[in-house]
Amino acid sequence: MAIPLEELQLAARNHGLPLEALRYSVTPIGLHYLLIHFDIPAVDADAWWLELGGLVERPLTLSLDELKARPEATIPVTLECAGNGRALLRGDRASSQPWLVEAVGTAEWTGTPLAPLLAEAGPAPDAAEVVFTGIDRGVQGDVEHDYARSLPLAEALREEVLLAYAVNGRPLPPQHGFPLRLVVPGWYGMTSVKWLRSIEVVAEPFAGWQQAVAYHLRADAEDEGRPVTRMEPRSLLVPPGIPDFLSRARFVPPGPCLLTGRAWSGRGPVERLEVSADGGRSWAEAELEEPLGEFAWRGWSYEWQAEPGEHELCCRATDAAGRTQPLEPPWNLEGLCNNAVQRVQVVVRG
Amino acid sequence: MAIPLEELQLAARNHGLPLEALRYSVTPIGLHYLLIHFDIPAVDADAWWLELGGLVERPLTLSLDELKARPEATIPVTLECAGNGRALLRGDRASSQPWLVEAVGTAEWTGTPLAPLLAEAGPAPDAAEVVFTGIDRGVQGDVEHDYARSLPLAEALREEVLLAYAVNGRPLPPQHGFPLRLVVPGWYGMTSVKWLRSIEVVAEPFAGWQQAVAYHLRADAEDEGRPVTRMEPRSLLVPPGIPDFLSRARFVPPGPCLLTGRAWSGRGPVERLEVSADGGRSWAEAELEEPLGEFAWRGWSYEWQAEPGEHELCCRATDAAGRTQPLEPPWNLEGLCNNAVQRVQVVVRG
Repeated sequence: MAIPLEELQLAARNHGLPLEALRYSVTPIGLHYLLIHFDIPAVDADAWWLELGGLVERPLTLSLDELKARPEATIPVTLECAGNGRALLRGDRASSQPWLVEAVGTAEWTGTPLAPLLAEAGPAPDAAEVVFTGIDRGVQGDVEHDYARSLPLAEALREEVLLAYAVNGRPLPPQHGFPLRLVVPGWYGMTSVKWLRSIEVVAEPFAGWQQAVAYHLRADAEDEGRPVTRMEPRSLLVPPGIPDFLSRARFVPPGPCLLTGRAWSGRGPVERLEVSADGGRSWAEAELEEPLGEFAWRGWSYEWQAEPGEHELCCRATDAAGRTQPLEPPWNLEGLCNNAVQRVQVVVRG
Repeated sequence: MAIPLEELQLAARNHGLPLEALRYSVTPIGLHYLLIHFDIPAVDADAWWLELGGLVERPLTLSLDELKARPEATIPVTLECAGNGRALLRGDRASSQPWLVEAVGTAEWTGTPLAPLLAEAGPAPDAAEVVFTGIDRGVQGDVEHDYARSLPLAEALREEVLLAYAVNGRPLPPQHGFPLRLVVPGWYGMTSVKWLRSIEVVAEPFAGWQQAVAYHLRADAEDEGRPVTRMEPRSLLVPPGIPDFLSRARFVPPGPCLLTGRAWSGRGPVERLEVSADGGRSWAEAELEEPLGEFAWRGWSYEWQAEPGEHELCCRATDAAGRTQPLEPPWNLEGLCNNAVQRVQVVVRG
């Protein structure tokens, strides 16, 4: 496998979670994954406001202070990039950010719930979707556009959907959407539009590039595909022992070795976590911690008896809906929603 | 150019500065570059202390609170990875983190100066070097070791060398060396050892792997090479206009376009900045801002008249010592100290 310069340019500017940072139930700022399509915009919060309009009875214009004066909620949310795992796909996939497994993080997002604001504006009877548009502008797929995504009205009205102005107790840093971003718990990260400037209620399915063209599961270029929505179940383990700098292989002494990690799903609570030390041929049950929250990852642990030799550690989450992780990456052209099990090479030596 | 999986693994976990973040004179936390050889260690600050020993009259053991109670200084410092530019080298270089141009950042580091602490300990007459050892452990070049680097005693005694416990006014986050790191202004980043646990005064040149083997400018594997020390002059520009997601090419409307950027050198103040819009064939003088500090980058600006067509923007810094940036990457086996001019592709269209 080799990565072309175009993809390296993206890998150099977008940030993954260093896997040892899975030890933190809430990811420290600076370690959470970041996928930024265009540029981080420079926003003067004093000259910024949010427009809420379209098919509503009472369009609203809100300053940051007005948003902060509204009811406030804080929710721990696990966000994962829909392209996580892309670089591990076999086959001639489309070029994009070459994530391995590290495009994830969990933060405590603070903001005001969207549903009461939408209710206040009063969607028209024919309202179908809500379009969220950011300040960030660029060209993708030969189309110049502001980054924008939509949600079905019913999803936008879920009580856990936030307009967030703080993360981990601090104002949003520029890279996480300052001054305001959407946070849609349970969905892949592309949904949680950063640097929000407008929210528009519409009657027709939104045809913007990031909605209608990107983020579709397609078998090939002719396939219309299915849109990406909620996160598939996934789990990661903290690579144990110490690493080799270049290969990232791990060295572990023989004996008991506590494996730990996190697991999540956007389709229901994680109810089972299995660990394999032989690359997925045999599995054992891990212990799940209490959930951090309904929309955040769940810690797990498993005491592995490390025998001298070479091992391939894997973990596999199963959610309440019975969905689990495949051993091999599921194919789609854009390399989306690849929740195949992580594989960590370990050498046990005395 | 293509990047193998091993290098992608490093690119996925280490973080570059998104180039638009050059707009900030002080880099926000989470956007500063990060190069982490092994794993970010989990450190309990209450169970942590710093040992200062070796060839000294009075060895010291200091808690974090004791260090914070000492004289405090805050210095803006530009840190750059010695491997910045590695991936742009032509030829069969050694594998490592594949940086393009983004391994840099400027932060306000707060801590206690090292020199008075060393004076208090009292180096022996035959003291030659000071060895700084981190808590982070791993294998590199087939050698298992804690990350450690040394400085000649005279360099360690420079008044601007800090033991830092805060960055940008906040306690160090885990990834920047919590609870304590060395900051050596002017030198490439490998010198500023993170997660410090000991400082040892020694009489002989330190033979640790990161000092004696790594970070040497070698023509080939047989070459003994020269050690990497201070940062070569370098400059970067904020890519103007809007980007194409994948190619990162820029689109700019015709007319006046203010180009801005930052320039630095570890070998003397930056005294000249030139801009080229034709890939380095012709150059014009940019305006330099007042320096942010003796050891931090210097802002610059240049009003470019953007004519329709395709252009390659470059910038070139020259420091007080007369050192400047080459047009082509200088060769060395490990791809170190590549300060060749940045090249930004721009399409000007109405």
